[in-house]
This record gives sequence, C-alpha cells and structure tokens, in this order.
Amino acid sequence: MSAQVDFFFNFGSTYSYLSIMRLEDEAVKAGVQIRWRPFNVRKLFVEQTNIPFPKEKAAKVAYIWRDIERRAARFGLEWNGVPPYPVDRSGLANRLGVIAGKEGWASAFTQAAYRAWFIDHKDFGQPEVASALLSDVGKDPRELIERAEGNAGKADFEAETDVARSLGIFGVPTFVVGSEIFWGHDRMEDAFAWALGQGE
Amino acid sequence: MSAQVDFFFNFGSTYSYLSIMRLEDEAVKAGVQIRWRPFNVRKLFVEQTNIPFPKEKAAKVAYIWRDIERRAARFGLEWNGVPPYPVDRSGLANRLGVIAGKEGWASAFTQAAYRAWFIDHKDFGQPEVASALLSDVGKDPRELIERAEGNAGKADFEAETDVARSLGIFGVPTFVVGSEIFWGHDRMEDAFAWALGQGE
Repeated sequence: MSAQVDFFFNFGSTYSYLSIMRLEDEAVKAGVQIRWRPFNVRKLFVEQTNIPFPKEKAAKVAYIWRDIERRAARFGLEWNGVPPYPVDRSGLANRLGVIAGKEGWASAFTQAAYRAWFIDHKDFGQPEVASALLSDVGKDPRELIERAEGNAGKADFEAETDVARSLGIFGVPTFVVGSEIFWGHDRMEDAFAWALGQGE
Repeated sequence: MSAQVDFFFNFGSTYSYLSIMRLEDEAVKAGVQIRWRPFNVRKLFVEQTNIPFPKEKAAKVAYIWRDIERRAARFGLEWNGVPPYPVDRSGLANRLGVIAGKEGWASAFTQAAYRAWFIDHKDFGQPEVASALLSDVGKDPRELIERAEGNAGKADFEAETDVARSLGIFGVPTFVVGSEIFWGHDRMEDAFAWALGQGE
C-alpha cells in the first residue's frame, strides 16, 4: 500500500494555489497518494475568531499577495496580478470539490478552478463558472450542481469540516498523515517525508 | 561586495530558534552576509492587534510547538520539550542583541541565548542569565547591561523597530533584501536567492 497524504483545503484559500497546481505531479514524484478533502475552513475561522485578511493588518495582507506572487514565480506557476477576493461565498465550488474528492476527479477540477480564479480572475463559486469548469473536466454540470446543493452535498461538506476540526486543523492548506498535521503549502515536503516514514 | 540579508527577529520569538541556530552556517554556504537586527516585534503586534499565542486558538498554539519540534528534528537541532514562554519581558536580551548586532558578535550571543532558552529552559531576559551568556561569549556583562539599560540602548532598540515598521514587517523572523521582505524561518532560502539575484 502506498503512503497516503490527505490534503485539507478550501476553494477560496489563496495560498492553496501554490499547492494545488503542483500537488499531483509532486506526489507522483515522491511516491505518495493524495486524498483531496475540501472543508469549511471559514466555519473554523469563526469558531477560532481568526480573520485571514483583517483591515488592521494591512502590512500582512500586502505581504501575503507579494509572497504568493514570488513563490509562484519560484515554482514556475502563472501569475496575473491579485485575483478577486473572497470567492465561493455560497460554498458551491467547495461542495462540488467534496464530491470530486470522493469520486477521484478532484485534481483536474481543482486545478481548473484555480486557473479560472488566479489567471482569468473569475469566481468559481458562481454557478455559470462552476458549470463551465465541470464541463471542461467532462462532467455533467446539471446533475452535479443538484447533488452539491442537496442535503447530502451540504451534509458531506459539514462532515469533512468536523473531521478537520477533530484533527486540530485551524488553517489551509493542511497536509495530514495519520494524526500528524502539516499546515501551509510550504510543509508539503515535510508531510510527504512523514508519510514515507522518513520524518519520524 | 557580497549579497546582504538583514535578519529581523526578536529574542523571545519561538520560530526564530529554527533560523538562529543555522543562519550563520547557511549564509556562509550560500555566500551571503547577515546583519542581525533584533527589534520590538511586540510593539508592532500591539499596533496590529496581533496576538501570537491566543487562548481561543488552542489548536494553532498546540500545532506551533509540534511544528517547531518536527522542524528542529529535520534540521538536526536539539529539542528538549516546550520551553518557558514568554521570555525577555523587560527587553534586556533584545537590547543587548541590538548592541551585539552593531558590534558583530550577535551570532554567537544569540545562539548562546537560544540554547539557554530551548535546551536549558532559562529566560535569557533575566539579568543573571544574560550576564552569564555575555561572559560565555567573552564580553563584560556589567558594562554591556549598563549600556543596554541606558537611554541610548533603549533608543536604538526603538529605532530598529521603526525601521522594521517602515519596511512593512509584521512578524518574526523576517529576512530583508532591499525593500523585499521574507517572513518566516522557511523563507530563508528565498531571501538568499533574492539577495544573490536569482529570485528576481
């Protein structure tokens, strides 16, 4: 059985761009398997009174975008200026992502969504954008949006959030190996090493 | 002239341990020069209503120590369990560090201080601990503590804090190359690359 890393993230997390566009390639190279697990990180932020982009922390907010821009360049990823923020306020893209994760097409869908957000500056939570993205990855938009907006779609998203909370997750992206959590796109290598038994 | 990186930190910053114990060696390997610049990050935290270890973020606080422990192991650094926190409440060690930075003995002093904190679990801000550390690095404790506690010692510490604020710094450690800031021990390599002209 190959080493497994669970990737907890949220459609709308800025730093996740730096993981999402590289994760599948890097996982293959390292020899680990990824489970894509979007969850409602905003709910945890509210519970923990954590505000990612607070007004009184203008210096930090300015830094975050600059850091993402520089890191994208370092990783050879595209950058088209600061994208709209926040996105996916209704949670549609996230709930689609939960389905995608369970069905094994999360990598393609999530990368397409982040390309739409970061490069085309579209909000992937808008139904027409989400529909186009689903079509692009060969899925039926009408059926999937109905499922994502149904009771089961909402319950599954909340259930993943409960798992995240019980693991001690407080931010995204977070890589999980067993009960060990690794927060931040810059901990991917640590998580992979841990999964492969080199980090213990 | 060799590439220069300014290392802005605070005696009492937990994550700085992971930089401080490796910085001089890594800088020599990379071919960059380090200026050690402690400043009053707590003042900036108050200004920005930033609380590094808040009660309502217990998950994050637990994570931080675990992350530091794992990263220390990865870097081959010693770990002796969670050290006392906070330390240097009076700012004595920080003001000594400002003098050390200007006089060129900051690396030895800071490493000794962090070893005392992380390994021996001592508060390097206590005058008797600071005195012993100064003696260990071949300095006159009485003369230096007098200078650090004098008006000039306090003013120099505040002046460094003003520089940090004007650069847009909001946390520590932060590596600075010109007007580019790199926050976190895990951005050391990015800062070095930038200083060497590979990051632009």
